[in-house]
Amino acid sequence: MLQGHQSWVFPNRPVIRSVATVGGPFEAQGPLAEDFDLLHGDLWLGQDSFEKAGKKMMEEACEIAVQKAGLQKQDIQFFLAGDLLNQITPSSFAARTLAIPYFGLYGACSTAMESLALAALFVDSKSAQYVLAGTSSHNAAVEKQFRYPTEYGGQKPPTAQWTVTGAGVAIVSDKGEGPVITRATIGRIVDMGISDPFNMGAAMAPAAADTITAHFRDFDVGHQEYDLIATGDLGKVGYRICVDLMQKHGVELPEDKYTDCGLLIYDMERQKDVLAGGSGCGCSATVTYGHILNRLKRGELNKVLIVATGALLSPLSFQQKESIPCIAHAVAIENVQ
Amino acid sequence: MLQGHQSWVFPNRPVIRSVATVGGPFEAQGPLAEDFDLLHGDLWLGQDSFEKAGKKMMEEACEIAVQKAGLQKQDIQFFLAGDLLNQITPSSFAARTLAIPYFGLYGACSTAMESLALAALFVDSKSAQYVLAGTSSHNAAVEKQFRYPTEYGGQKPPTAQWTVTGAGVAIVSDKGEGPVITRATIGRIVDMGISDPFNMGAAMAPAAADTITAHFRDFDVGHQEYDLIATGDLGKVGYRICVDLMQKHGVELPEDKYTDCGLLIYDMERQKDVLAGGSGCGCSATVTYGHILNRLKRGELNKVLIVATGALLSPLSFQQKESIPCIAHAVAIENVQ
Repeated sequence: MLQGHQSWVFPNRPVIRSVATVGGPFEAQGPLAEDFDLLHGDLWLGQDSFEKAGKKMMEEACEIAVQKAGLQKQDIQFFLAGDLLNQITPSSFAARTLAIPYFGLYGACSTAMESLALAALFVDSKSAQYVLAGTSSHNAAVEKQFRYPTEYGGQKPPTAQWTVTGAGVAIVSDKGEGPVITRATIGRIVDMGISDPFNMGAAMAPAAADTITAHFRDFDVGHQEYDLIATGDLGKVGYRICVDLMQKHGVELPEDKYTDCGLLIYDMERQKDVLAGGSGCGCSATVTYGHILNRLKRGELNKVLIVATGALLSPLSFQQKESIPCIAHAVAIENVQ
Repeated sequence: MLQGHQSWVFPNRPVIRSVATVGGPFEAQGPLAEDFDLLHGDLWLGQDSFEKAGKKMMEEACEIAVQKAGLQKQDIQFFLAGDLLNQITPSSFAARTLAIPYFGLYGACSTAMESLALAALFVDSKSAQYVLAGTSSHNAAVEKQFRYPTEYGGQKPPTAQWTVTGAGVAIVSDKGEGPVITRATIGRIVDMGISDPFNMGAAMAPAAADTITAHFRDFDVGHQEYDLIATGDLGKVGYRICVDLMQKHGVELPEDKYTDCGLLIYDMERQKDVLAGGSGCGCSATVTYGHILNRLKRGELNKVLIVATGALLSPLSFQQKESIPCIAHAVAIENVQ
C-alpha cells in the first residue's frame, strides 16, 4: 500500500521464508565467510566462461533457498532477478533452468532490494504465495565487461571497489517462519555529475542519502526506528560522503548505527586488493541475506533498513561522456516480536 | 490477485489513462503512421549518438503521456521502464530527466507488457495512484549492439527482422477515463534450442504459445474471450510457428483473430527491408499503445490480449554458443462497457 510519496507499507507482513548465499574464493577469505551457505574455491565453478559461472552461482543459490524453505520449484509463482551483465544473461539463463515465471530486472547493484520490494508487494497484495528474488555478480565477468579483463592486471585508483563474486536470494511468502518485510522506499535517479567509473561510491552516495531521507519522511521516523541501517556498496569513499550529505540535510545518521555492505564483506586491512571496499549486485545481496539476517536470527538486531545502491551507467554511456545516474532502494526487515 | 499458476486478475480495473507513441522515419512511412503522436524525420533526433536519440524518444513519449493525462510529473509515483541497450541506459537516463521513483526492467521486447502488468498490479493493490510504464528501441543503436552497425550495410537472411525505432508508454491509474487492464499472465523462459540471432521469430514463438496456453488455462477461457490476440514481434516466421504450435497443443487460435505487432507496423510488400517484419521493444509498445488502443477507442475492438515476446540473449551468450532463452508476458485490455 502506498505510503507518502514513494514508499510502500506491507500490512500483511510478508515473511522471508528462506535465504541462500553463494560466494567465491575471495569472499571465502573474508570476515563473513561463515555466513555463506556455499563457498567456491575456484572462480570458474567448473564452467568454461565466467559468465556461465555467474549463472551457475545463481542457480545454486536458488536451489539451496528452495530446499531450505522445504518447497519444490513448482510451488513458487514468480522469480524476480537481475544482475550486472549485458542483457542480464546469468539471471535469464538461471530462470530457464528454474522454469518459474520470470521478471527480469535491471537496477545494477540496487537490484537486491528492487527485487525484494517487488516480492514483498506481490505477497502482500495476494498476487503470489511464494516469490523467489535475488541477484548475483561475478568479479571476473563484471570487471571484463565494465573495465578490463582481470588477466590484464590493470592498476586501479584507491577509490575503486572490488566486485563481489556472489549470489544472494530470498523466498518471500505469506506464511512460514522468518523475519518480515514491513516497508520499502523506491528511489529516484540522482546524478551529481560524477563520471569516474573508478569512483562509484562517490557517485552513488547522494542516491543513498536521497532514499534514506525519503524513507524517514514518508514514514515520519528517524534513525531511532532501526537497529541498523546498511547501504549497499558505497565503500569507504561513498560511506563518508553519505554521512556528510545526511548531516548537511540536517538528518542524523549516527555512525554506530549506519554501516555499508561494501565495508563488511572483506577485511579492509588484510584484503588490500579491495581498495575502497566491495561492490556489485552480489555485495548487498550476500551480506543482507547472509550476515545481516543471521544477526536478526540471533536476536542481535531486530529491525534493519537495507538501502541497496546502483550505478546505472554503461561502458558506452561513459565513453559518450555521460555522468553516472544512480539509484537506491530501501527495504525494512524486522523480527516478529 | 493471483489467479491459477502464473496469472493475475485485477478486480479494481486499473485504467490506462493516457498513452503516447513516438516513431522514426521508417515508421512514418508505414501503414500505422497516423497512430503515432510524434514522428521524427531523422534517426538522430538532433543528438550526437543513436543511444542518446533513443533516450530522447523515451523522454518525449513520457512528456506527451503526462500532458495528455492532464498531470504533472510529480503526480506520478513510479516509472517502470526498460529497453534493449546494455544496462538499459536510454530508460535510466530518461528516468533521470523525469525524476520519478524508478524500477528498471529487462525483458527485451517483452518489456512492454512486463511493465504494464506491474503497473496494473501497483494500481490495483493501491500501491500507486499513477504509474508511468513503457519501453523503447532505436534501430541503429540496437543493430549496432546486437549485430552490426547499420552503416556497414550488412546483408541479412529473410528470417531476420527490422528493429523498430519507437517509444511507447502508458499512464495507468486508479481513476479517469480509458480502457481498463483486467488480467495478466507472466511467462516463463522457453528455449527450444534455436541459437540463430537472425531468426528471433522462430526462437520466440514457443514462448508466445506457452504464455497464451497458460493464460487460457489460468482463466479457463479460449480465443472466444477476446476480439483480438496480438503477439509482440514474431514476424512472418514466428507467427506461422506460433499458429502451428497452438494447433499441435490442441488450442485453437484462428488466424482472423490472431495477429502480430511485427506484421502490422510496416507495409510488408512495400517496405521490403523489414524482411520478416518489425521487432524490438518499441514494436509491441507503439503498436499496442497507438494502433490497437485507437481501435479500442473507436469501438472496433472491445477486448484484446497483448502478448509481448522477448529474446533474452546477449551478443556474448551467442558467441559462447548458448541458445536463445525466450519469454512472453500477456496483458488483457478492455473497454469499459
